[in-house]
Amino acid sequence: MNSPILDDLNWRYTTKSYDPNKTISTENIAIISEALRLSASSINSQPWRFIILESDDAKQRFSNTFETKFLANKPHATNASHIILFTHNPHYSIEDFEAVIDKNILDGRIKPEKKDDAVSKFSFADLYTEPSGYNANWTKAQLYLAFGNILHVLARLKIDSTPLEGIDVKRVEKEFSQELDGFSCPVALAIGYHDEADFNARLPKSRMPLETVVHKI
Amino acid sequence: MNSPILDDLNWRYTTKSYDPNKTISTENIAIISEALRLSASSINSQPWRFIILESDDAKQRFSNTFETKFLANKPHATNASHIILFTHNPHYSIEDFEAVIDKNILDGRIKPEKKDDAVSKFSFADLYTEPSGYNANWTKAQLYLAFGNILHVLARLKIDSTPLEGIDVKRVEKEFSQELDGFSCPVALAIGYHDEADFNARLPKSRMPLETVVHKI
Repeated sequence: MNSPILDDLNWRYTTKSYDPNKTISTENIAIISEALRLSASSINSQPWRFIILESDDAKQRFSNTFETKFLANKPHATNASHIILFTHNPHYSIEDFEAVIDKNILDGRIKPEKKDDAVSKFSFADLYTEPSGYNANWTKAQLYLAFGNILHVLARLKIDSTPLEGIDVKRVEKEFSQELDGFSCPVALAIGYHDEADFNARLPKSRMPLETVVHKI
Repeated sequence: MNSPILDDLNWRYTTKSYDPNKTISTENIAIISEALRLSASSINSQPWRFIILESDDAKQRFSNTFETKFLANKPHATNASHIILFTHNPHYSIEDFEAVIDKNILDGRIKPEKKDDAVSKFSFADLYTEPSGYNANWTKAQLYLAFGNILHVLARLKIDSTPLEGIDVKRVEKEFSQELDGFSCPVALAIGYHDEADFNARLPKSRMPLETVVHKI
């Protein structure tokens, strides 16, 4: 099957070693940022914030969070060009959604007189919200949707990446508590360019057979 | 910013009304299937199965699940070209992971003598697994990663889509219990081509401002 889409997805792999001398261009960081912003989410809730660690200082702070867990991932913190902290709001509220609707009105998508009707669609989020206001499982799902989008974007840009569920979440959330401002950070993403020593760059991709994962009826 | 990636993401929108006479080509369904298969997942776990409803009978069965909830989505069931049920394993086990490793060995990615070492990486999944074996929150996150990937793929193929968290999960899981075989189905995706009546095709996209969702430090 000849397809540039499949070529990109087959090109992508999880980088295990980065070249610290290669940096993602400012233009590509701008594309990645805008692509994150454009990600889809349930009821357009956008219950997320993406913290891009670009400065040596910020990357060093991330490196410092690897103290006892997942030490194999520690070198990525400083060798990758950038790290993105994927964070989601564990208590997404009707006020947060109202801000989304206000932006919709500003963008000419919703008429001002329809605001109440639009805000009432928060009832969908309510289905996933505990009485305490906790709805982290729902907002986390949206965050992973953005994560899947950006992995595809990076493949198109021929930028290497490493999904990092292997982070010390507690330490990351403590170190970046000011930037996270109450949001949760279950996963990060190292991005950059692999170095010659990366054994994983040369290994074949492996996935379960098509007939196992896709059933057509 | 001039970028085909951003053009695709800006092109994408949530379709509200499908043209029942337009069908996705067999070739594109094959690309979508393979793109789903190639999605990334934590420790390459692939804890998913994608059920593509293509026949009139299968789509009608899906339509029948809209009895009392989310009736606005019911027309998509039969008017969209295809529906994809996104399903994940709520009890992903070390045996499931062993099957992945066996496929890795078959694909020449892992040497047979390294099998035990490779299977031991299931310890990462254990971190998200309750004593009962329940790890649905973790496997659901991976499923949404595949979901985000495929939304991007569809935008590249210029195929319209509608993410459907608005389904009656209980009825869907009952109606398709044989196909799901114990897997959970939190979300579906309608895909096809919008019709002229789709008001949403003409509305501008709206997202929160870049400075709100992306912070660079």
